[in-house]
Amino acid sequence: MSIAKPSGIPAKRADAERNREKILAAARAAFADPDADPSMAEIARRAGIGSATLYRNFANRRSLLEALYTYEVDALCEAATTITGDSPGAILITWMRRFYAYYTSKRHVAAELLEHTSADNPVFGGGLPRVLAAGQPLLLAAQSAGEIRSDLTLKQILDLIVSVAKIQGSTEYVEPILRAALDALRPTDQA
Amino acid sequence: MSIAKPSGIPAKRADAERNREKILAAARAAFADPDADPSMAEIARRAGIGSATLYRNFANRRSLLEALYTYEVDALCEAATTITGDSPGAILITWMRRFYAYYTSKRHVAAELLEHTSADNPVFGGGLPRVLAAGQPLLLAAQSAGEIRSDLTLKQILDLIVSVAKIQGSTEYVEPILRAALDALRPTDQA
Repeated sequence: MSIAKPSGIPAKRADAERNREKILAAARAAFADPDADPSMAEIARRAGIGSATLYRNFANRRSLLEALYTYEVDALCEAATTITGDSPGAILITWMRRFYAYYTSKRHVAAELLEHTSADNPVFGGGLPRVLAAGQPLLLAAQSAGEIRSDLTLKQILDLIVSVAKIQGSTEYVEPILRAALDALRPTDQA
Repeated sequence: MSIAKPSGIPAKRADAERNREKILAAARAAFADPDADPSMAEIARRAGIGSATLYRNFANRRSLLEALYTYEVDALCEAATTITGDSPGAILITWMRRFYAYYTSKRHVAAELLEHTSADNPVFGGGLPRVLAAGQPLLLAAQSAGEIRSDLTLKQILDLIVSVAKIQGSTEYVEPILRAALDALRPTDQA
């Protein structure tokens, strides 16, 4: 899932973009473990680059975390256009699982960012409107196909998924709850 | 929904019990509005008793709040034995709505109690095991009847309801999410 690049980029610039991408992918993987607190050196090692290259791209940990946060939102929004499935409903459910994974991994990055900055940071504010805009076509298609209940907005659905993501417990404990919440998006006789 | 009393109580003791019950019912009503911060005088006024009687029953605000918390748990547990419905599934869903109402109203009382005491207070610790014990027969009956999915424990279901109760927003906003979460308890083809 690479970020779209304008065509005709000079080779040197393309190299720099590739390094940046490698660093962000390595940082994402390093932060995927909730208990991980990877150092800049550890991220450089995972990316297979030197520290000098890392710091040329990101002057400090905070700017790397901000870029990582935006990178995760980009990837989630792009997934809304690339996910495939058997039906509009299946596509929406798959994207919701992607959103859940985004939210649970993002939290650790966001928590650390908040130690360095404030919730007013524009990096935070831009996320939700973009996610809503990216997901809205998927929801409309699934609702039009009668595969997803029509009494919930995308914001309400995301709030439900986020609330499940906040439940304390192991993956084995929370996964059935998430599955039930996703099943809840299907139309029912009661709805 | 009165608290069960041992039979043969002397008239004087029964009077005292009635006052206590009146105070707790008034306190519950006074705290039902999330923005309310009722004074002891206001609670006495609502209960239709004098301040002296109030303070004879509850020496201070903290002991009233502790008793109110326990009273709410009592009422919720008793509801599990008295709720009626068309089927075991309907009874469970009704009790889950009652749990949701308990949780949303309880939160304000619990939040204020926490200002006066600590989370280690045994008043808090006793709640969940009692609620689980009260709800378990309802869940088993509903699952045996095939009306409620069998891949969730009562603890997982309560966690789902609590997580919905924590969603920020007006009743109009959260109610459809709660409805979806309750629909999620029904068995599905996907489950």
